[in-house]
Amino acid sequence: MQLLLLSNSTNQGEEYLGWPREILSRFIKKNSIKSCLFVPYAGVTVGWDEYSSRVQEVFESWGCLVQPIHTANDAVLAVSQAECIVVGGGNTFRLVQKMHETGIMAAIRAKVLSGTPFIGWSAGSNVACPSLCTTNDMPIIQPASFNTLNLIPFQINPHYLDANPEGHGGETREQRINEFLALNPQVIVAGLREATALQMDGGELQLLGNRPMRLFVAGKEPAEYQPGTDLAFLLTHLASNPKKIIAVQ
Amino acid sequence: MQLLLLSNSTNQGEEYLGWPREILSRFIKKNSIKSCLFVPYAGVTVGWDEYSSRVQEVFESWGCLVQPIHTANDAVLAVSQAECIVVGGGNTFRLVQKMHETGIMAAIRAKVLSGTPFIGWSAGSNVACPSLCTTNDMPIIQPASFNTLNLIPFQINPHYLDANPEGHGGETREQRINEFLALNPQVIVAGLREATALQMDGGELQLLGNRPMRLFVAGKEPAEYQPGTDLAFLLTHLASNPKKIIAVQ
Repeated sequence: MQLLLLSNSTNQGEEYLGWPREILSRFIKKNSIKSCLFVPYAGVTVGWDEYSSRVQEVFESWGCLVQPIHTANDAVLAVSQAECIVVGGGNTFRLVQKMHETGIMAAIRAKVLSGTPFIGWSAGSNVACPSLCTTNDMPIIQPASFNTLNLIPFQINPHYLDANPEGHGGETREQRINEFLALNPQVIVAGLREATALQMDGGELQLLGNRPMRLFVAGKEPAEYQPGTDLAFLLTHLASNPKKIIAVQ
Repeated sequence: MQLLLLSNSTNQGEEYLGWPREILSRFIKKNSIKSCLFVPYAGVTVGWDEYSSRVQEVFESWGCLVQPIHTANDAVLAVSQAECIVVGGGNTFRLVQKMHETGIMAAIRAKVLSGTPFIGWSAGSNVACPSLCTTNDMPIIQPASFNTLNLIPFQINPHYLDANPEGHGGETREQRINEFLALNPQVIVAGLREATALQMDGGELQLLGNRPMRLFVAGKEPAEYQPGTDLAFLLTHLASNPKKIIAVQ
């Protein structure tokens, strides 16, 4: 499998998809990608046409066409014909609800398992995990299921934040992830800080960017992994038993 | 109906259930409550026994016994016999999953509609709404449904925060609520700031505390309502058609 999972599209104050340009460019060139099927369903207050145009503007600099899936007559057919699948960020619940409703959840999984490259950011990285659990988004609609693409056997928490800024009284991200682990002790959670990404190339898994990743394993102290560390162990953990991964009623 | 819906249990740095003591005491006396059935299911990293003990310590100062629902042989029977129902905060997804699993969701709704007083804080206030949408919590488990008690016809966003503290790059609370309204334009959302509460007494609805409430209606500018304002209009809005309230796939 060829996966590129970005924590976020854009750092505060920077241009759209600014920080990951070189990472995206390399991934697209390495895989000789000339066109991408784009899934804009996570967009809620931005229209899907406008969202797709913003992505097209960035990707065309690499000679890469962007086909928005919502304009396809048959979304599942479009998936089966795609050269690369790109899932953008926004609201994870809306994204997952639409992916189940349109039938592309199963179709994308099969297609990416067969070797088609996959790029996601934020909610788009979250859906590469076994479930939508560990998203930071507000539940604004009920999806048919919390199960997602299950392309990797662990959960990503995108936009991972170390501590609450002063004056913020809610749970820290670490406390929230610990709540997840309390109910799902068999699942590892990777806290992916902004401006970092995970790249999977066959059986290899690598952290890209300049900041470490924080890894949460039930019953252990959280651990920091620097970019360049061999993370392949995350791909074998429990991968043989994906059905046991998430606590679903 | 007699409802007391608190935004939060405890302000940062204060004792447990500190700020609402007088509000709780008045509600309990007014309704001559001698015992409460406590629902601790939102507790995840705190054990339900310990959680219930902490609540008992506060409530016993008013001569009010606390019976934890998880120790009852028959949870639905316990609901039907309760003098008052108290639902504590924690993780809303866990709370809703357990409320559906145990069958108390429907039982509590019927019991409170028949006149039994209801107290909730944080997640416990969220479940008084038509759905769990507008919670701030992380989805750590999939409930059978997002539908909740539907005791009031609008949504509460507890712990409402006006703006993100500096350095926090995610969506503001207002942006998240606007995403909810984009998919559910027929539903009103009340942003309930910390140390405030909504009290419903028959057909009357009142804001308690010293801070205004921020009300979100699709297509309108958010509006501020001061404590003491007549909020009864929120109880009639769409109440006649609760099935249409939430966007569920």
